[in-house]
Amino acid sequence: MVTEEMLNQIKSMIKSEKRILTEKADLVSYAYDGSFGSYLPDLVLQPLSTEEVSGIVKTANRWKVPIYPRGRGTSLSGGPLPVYGGIVLDFSLWNQKLTIDRDDTVAIVSPGVITAEIDRAAREFGLMYPPDPSSAHVSTIGGNLAENAGGPRGLKYGVTKDYVLGLEIVTPQGDIIRTGGRTIKNVTGYDLTKLIVGSEGTLGIITEAILQLIPRPQATQTMMVIFDDIVDAGRAISSVLTSGILPSKMEIMDQFSIEAVEDYEPIGLPTDVDAIILIELDGHPLAIQDECHQVEKVCLDVGAREVKIATDSESAAKLWKARKLVSPAIVRKKPTKISEDATIPRSKIPEMFKRLKEIKTKYDIDLVVFGHAGDGNLHPNIIADKRDKAEMKRVEQAVTEIFSTAIELGGTLSGEHGIGTMKTPFMEMELGGAGLEMMKRMKTAWDPLNIMNPGKIFPDSKDQRLVLVDD
Amino acid sequence: MVTEEMLNQIKSMIKSEKRILTEKADLVSYAYDGSFGSYLPDLVLQPLSTEEVSGIVKTANRWKVPIYPRGRGTSLSGGPLPVYGGIVLDFSLWNQKLTIDRDDTVAIVSPGVITAEIDRAAREFGLMYPPDPSSAHVSTIGGNLAENAGGPRGLKYGVTKDYVLGLEIVTPQGDIIRTGGRTIKNVTGYDLTKLIVGSEGTLGIITEAILQLIPRPQATQTMMVIFDDIVDAGRAISSVLTSGILPSKMEIMDQFSIEAVEDYEPIGLPTDVDAIILIELDGHPLAIQDECHQVEKVCLDVGAREVKIATDSESAAKLWKARKLVSPAIVRKKPTKISEDATIPRSKIPEMFKRLKEIKTKYDIDLVVFGHAGDGNLHPNIIADKRDKAEMKRVEQAVTEIFSTAIELGGTLSGEHGIGTMKTPFMEMELGGAGLEMMKRMKTAWDPLNIMNPGKIFPDSKDQRLVLVDD
Repeated sequence: MVTEEMLNQIKSMIKSEKRILTEKADLVSYAYDGSFGSYLPDLVLQPLSTEEVSGIVKTANRWKVPIYPRGRGTSLSGGPLPVYGGIVLDFSLWNQKLTIDRDDTVAIVSPGVITAEIDRAAREFGLMYPPDPSSAHVSTIGGNLAENAGGPRGLKYGVTKDYVLGLEIVTPQGDIIRTGGRTIKNVTGYDLTKLIVGSEGTLGIITEAILQLIPRPQATQTMMVIFDDIVDAGRAISSVLTSGILPSKMEIMDQFSIEAVEDYEPIGLPTDVDAIILIELDGHPLAIQDECHQVEKVCLDVGAREVKIATDSESAAKLWKARKLVSPAIVRKKPTKISEDATIPRSKIPEMFKRLKEIKTKYDIDLVVFGHAGDGNLHPNIIADKRDKAEMKRVEQAVTEIFSTAIELGGTLSGEHGIGTMKTPFMEMELGGAGLEMMKRMKTAWDPLNIMNPGKIFPDSKDQRLVLVDD
Repeated sequence: MVTEEMLNQIKSMIKSEKRILTEKADLVSYAYDGSFGSYLPDLVLQPLSTEEVSGIVKTANRWKVPIYPRGRGTSLSGGPLPVYGGIVLDFSLWNQKLTIDRDDTVAIVSPGVITAEIDRAAREFGLMYPPDPSSAHVSTIGGNLAENAGGPRGLKYGVTKDYVLGLEIVTPQGDIIRTGGRTIKNVTGYDLTKLIVGSEGTLGIITEAILQLIPRPQATQTMMVIFDDIVDAGRAISSVLTSGILPSKMEIMDQFSIEAVEDYEPIGLPTDVDAIILIELDGHPLAIQDECHQVEKVCLDVGAREVKIATDSESAAKLWKARKLVSPAIVRKKPTKISEDATIPRSKIPEMFKRLKEIKTKYDIDLVVFGHAGDGNLHPNIIADKRDKAEMKRVEQAVTEIFSTAIELGGTLSGEHGIGTMKTPFMEMELGGAGLEMMKRMKTAWDPLNIMNPGKIFPDSKDQRLVLVDD
């Protein structure tokens, strides 16, 4: 697919041969991401400038070769997988630009910057970059932008998209355009910024972003609320949110998550309960002290068994440890972890938990549920062994039912992981034929040769199945 | 343009003939909006259901007749003007649906609901709908959605788009699709919701919206800060925002606005100063009390002459009165008011004020500046008399220079009013040829017949001039 002539043209535009990878030993590292499936690219390039990206895209157009942008490969939906071979653009080296403009309260970043570094840099100016995907210490901002990453703070602060003011992108034809700018308000024409963020690299390549920062809250307060009945937990969430208080995080762990953690590392969690909610308040110290007591009262009023309030940062860390241990705890049980992010309206949380319990029994699978309860973004995680074909078949059926249940309850296939290769067969179920058609028209109008991350978002002939099992 | 046969088809699908307006006396009311220019439609329809809208659009497709959606006509950019005649869809009667779902903290609304009614309904549940355009008591939510309306609270709470979770829209072909849903997090395919909001009715017609509500802040605190030098005012804004405090509003008035108000109704404003900033803090009562003192200190440190702090809601209202009187005060001087909303990065506020003073002198125009300083969304207002052709020529030149200055300073043509008919000639200046081309591709892919609000956003042969003077 990648001809000698094409490679020569590329060599003339990439300044260092070290950033042109053609050896199979190198290419193999780019065949995977945090999801399933393995697809070997023909070529990996590591651009360090917008001009290089523009040149590469123009070359790819000439030879009609697919391009797959990639950050650090933490995607849980197959976002960077080169399903049709071609060129992987590895942006992980391009992390040089991370400028904080204190007066405009923005950060200007190159695509390879590690997400957590942005918040760290902002902190020095009394500012905050709120989006906090769990992979923030590993993932690149470019990947976060492509997938519109979420995180626990989504409840109060929204998601990646809510903090993107402007972008520089390279179009599928290799043109360089700028969208948005440095202002919160901008209604000049269509909002290409928010269209590109979350379009999973199918409409263009992000080469720079201007991110909005906000004043950093002065203090935080953590509390753990224990429930004998998960339905009460659901009611507690609603009651807190309609009492005038907006916590920065509200994370839920179901009984199976709690048991898994206590099995893995006994930290004193009560295993005879139905659910735990971890709540973080942030803001002015006097306000959160008062709000903490209000939240405690609201939770006890709706039937919480107990409320534990952290007294200092050390005891707060101890409470959060329960949530942090869930993932390592469950993967110890079985090697294959399927992490879903079907998201439902907040009022449907109790119903969703009930339905997930039924799915667990019906398909005889190991299912634990935890996640961002405040915004309905649960993470049903199935643990399995991918060598067990019979089990994986049941897992596939269970995942399908989780998706259809989320949609039936007025929710969505994906809250924060993206569609990628994994969820393409379900797109029409959520969007309907006409809705999907309008998205396809945009893709075709922008990328008529279909060279930008093909095989993602849209159902196509190659990936009409749930890619759960590695080849 | 509207044939007998077409009209008969429309009569068969609109349930009441009262909602089909064909008399010239009626049509004339739909020729105008809050901006300039006057264009008579051929027909006005007042739909009350999605099915009616879908049927009308299908009919319009058959006869290739333009459709112009309209709320209450408060647009300052020409959004609803029927520049090519055809059908105006008047949504002002369709205000029946305004449902608050307390558990999901959302409002579900039909397009004709008055914006301020949404916040009023939310308040009963301890919730808030933050977007607060100045026209909120008159404008419809449908118009706000089409234009992505802003308002003073944009600084802390963002704009209309930030509160739209899902939409029902009728496509340019008359198909009914749903975008997004009821969840904060949704990354299933392209973000059509945020694309449609702000697309000024050129990509489809919004027939229902699901809006996010947030917990209502428990208290507010207003203060007025007086500056001898507007540059200090600019520094004060930055200093406050990097001190860990995010006010809900930060409104600035320049010397000319202050003088105009005192001329109109003497309320005791100091007229020997360069600028006033009005600040509103909201949140927990203890927090804002403390923050108020911090803001006072920060402002005095950077050179404020005086800080006035409201002691109760009555004195707060008195402070805000200054800002509310600006518009009535300036229109008394001359009958024609040109309200611009060029927006610049916050750090460029002092420079923008300097440049606006120069423009005022250069073109010998009456220019006052006030607006949402916290987010750089200034409102340079020119007052003139449209019967004075020579003056209007100078106004047109001054407006052109305001636009180019805003773009030169890294800002945008429009922060919250939209492009409409008024700013189409300047689109390429801000977006560049390739950026504008990518927007056009989307328009053409979705609306190949160009029947959805034609003559807006994109420069075309008919409106290559600033439509400042009525015919």
